[in-house]
Amino acid sequence: MERFNIAVIGAATLVGQEFVKVLGERGFPVASLQLFTSKHSSDAKLFPKHQTIGIEEMTTETFYDIDIAFFAAGTEISYHLSPLAIEAETLVIDTSNAFRMDPKIPLVVPEVNPEDIKQHKGIIANPNCSTIQLVVALYPLHKINPIKRIIVNTYQSVSGSGAGALKELIAQTKQILEGHRVCPHIYSHQIAFNVLPETDVFLDNGYTKEEQKMADETRKIMHAKDILISATCVRVPVYFGHSESINVEFSSPITPEETRRVLVHSPSVKVLDDPSVSLYPLPWAASGSNHVFVGRIRSDTSHPNGLAMWIVADNLRKGTALNAVQIVEEGIKMGYITFRDRKLPHQHSLSRKGTGGLK
Amino acid sequence: MERFNIAVIGAATLVGQEFVKVLGERGFPVASLQLFTSKHSSDAKLFPKHQTIGIEEMTTETFYDIDIAFFAAGTEISYHLSPLAIEAETLVIDTSNAFRMDPKIPLVVPEVNPEDIKQHKGIIANPNCSTIQLVVALYPLHKINPIKRIIVNTYQSVSGSGAGALKELIAQTKQILEGHRVCPHIYSHQIAFNVLPETDVFLDNGYTKEEQKMADETRKIMHAKDILISATCVRVPVYFGHSESINVEFSSPITPEETRRVLVHSPSVKVLDDPSVSLYPLPWAASGSNHVFVGRIRSDTSHPNGLAMWIVADNLRKGTALNAVQIVEEGIKMGYITFRDRKLPHQHSLSRKGTGGLK
Repeated sequence: MERFNIAVIGAATLVGQEFVKVLGERGFPVASLQLFTSKHSSDAKLFPKHQTIGIEEMTTETFYDIDIAFFAAGTEISYHLSPLAIEAETLVIDTSNAFRMDPKIPLVVPEVNPEDIKQHKGIIANPNCSTIQLVVALYPLHKINPIKRIIVNTYQSVSGSGAGALKELIAQTKQILEGHRVCPHIYSHQIAFNVLPETDVFLDNGYTKEEQKMADETRKIMHAKDILISATCVRVPVYFGHSESINVEFSSPITPEETRRVLVHSPSVKVLDDPSVSLYPLPWAASGSNHVFVGRIRSDTSHPNGLAMWIVADNLRKGTALNAVQIVEEGIKMGYITFRDRKLPHQHSLSRKGTGGLK
Repeated sequence: MERFNIAVIGAATLVGQEFVKVLGERGFPVASLQLFTSKHSSDAKLFPKHQTIGIEEMTTETFYDIDIAFFAAGTEISYHLSPLAIEAETLVIDTSNAFRMDPKIPLVVPEVNPEDIKQHKGIIANPNCSTIQLVVALYPLHKINPIKRIIVNTYQSVSGSGAGALKELIAQTKQILEGHRVCPHIYSHQIAFNVLPETDVFLDNGYTKEEQKMADETRKIMHAKDILISATCVRVPVYFGHSESINVEFSSPITPEETRRVLVHSPSVKVLDDPSVSLYPLPWAASGSNHVFVGRIRSDTSHPNGLAMWIVADNLRKGTALNAVQIVEEGIKMGYITFRDRKLPHQHSLSRKGTGGLK
């Protein structure tokens, strides 16, 4: 079996750590695994079995040794380093927002649009975590009964804002329990025992960028430019796992029974839906799972073609790292990702100079 | 000024305690204040200045001394004791779910349907906390542009489930922070660092009773039986304050500017809406306030007549006790509540026997 030289760029972030876990767990064919962290990151001790390398020192040469680079270090680093990776013919799977809406770059959820991988020119974008779980649950229904409108409200965990946010929630929670007041740093307001209707920056239309992403990315991934979408994204004091309440309007009526029949056979979906025993998806329980959980499936009493449901997934896992790894697995399986014609690193390293690292 | 003999039935509940606070703060014309608590309640020490009396011992005679009884002890006690109160011509303001949808009993939010107080026959029902803040914010808009459809998602604090739930959240949070697993009692699942899409029991249509209440009560209070409403009610690990994300469809287009213009002059509403400085309503900040806070006002990009907004209020205060006190204030002011023809207690107490207490 072909094995690959893998890099995780931003390995000390929560998403980076998840990549290391997922790659190990799935038996992904890894020849070598290089972990790149920021110089400022003191978290090299996170990876006792691996040597970590400074992102700041990366050059085109660095990428010659890398077949596939999973980028998990944020938008700026993706912009800076991806041209170097492309020059070295390293495949970039980017989890940042840098390239998602670039019409020339595929934005892929393997359960929905694996064919789009074929169009890649060296970069494949991984969608926003909130979008991935939404389309995994909705696409199987959309295929049999086209969706016209989606209203989605999120209950997003703090891990989506990174390790610092997780620490902030824990620290603030302790302070409140001890009767102290708290001082917010990462979020605009206290997150402990509170909910914040602000994720990402605000746009002119009153939506946040996260809310706009959910709409734009969903349309792009599902190849459904006419679906109307309104999102309200809310941060809640939960460690891991994003929850979404959705009201969907289909082209024609759909029953909860039919919905369940479709979803139980849909890839990566697990239906947890028995109100009589309080069975429904929960973020605490979904943490660490590969599935997108769906429950509270019911007819939306406010629209004849409406359906309401509740969707939960681990935002770091299926929402990010796992989806990115699945893109590669699926791309290789379908023959859209191949390294057969790639020049070997030594062919380069003798003949070329580096083209510069991150400033 | 006329002063009244007041009773709070279930004074040791969170709502009962809020009644005592609100009556004191507002300078409500109280001649006497009697606090009734359950025998099982060991919380008499909550009221050092007041003597508390066992609910179990209440008879018709007990009510002869009471002009107005605020019921905050749950549906069962409301069913049992309200007939005794009515026999004694005591006005019942009931915060439970016992009578809300009874077509003969007014369900009142003073900012919306004060005229309905006129129809009362001794009982006035106080709506569900989630409903009150919704209609306070929406009715001023509905008057100028009739609402056709509401989709509401709640982020409800645990105080809505009573003092035990508040203790459970705090205890579980401490356990989790110490690395222990938790055992749920009041809720079906862990509430600390989790969100639960279950409030109240499930109905056959897949909605919970709380979700159905929001729809039914909103239509009754606003006298708008044709409004289509779908609610998803979710419990979040917040102490006090319910938050609601709503998508409203009006009869014709409405701009965010017009919405703000209407709402800044609406009774009990406070607009907090400046994304540029992260100003929007928050449950932690709304706790203890008399207002219904509205923010994140924006055109719903998924419907030409759509509007999205974010509404927060203190569920114990404006969501329950304050609204109930305001019903009486408004009813007296409008002349719909009067005790002029009420028989005096001593007229009864000599001539009649008690008609039994709570079994």
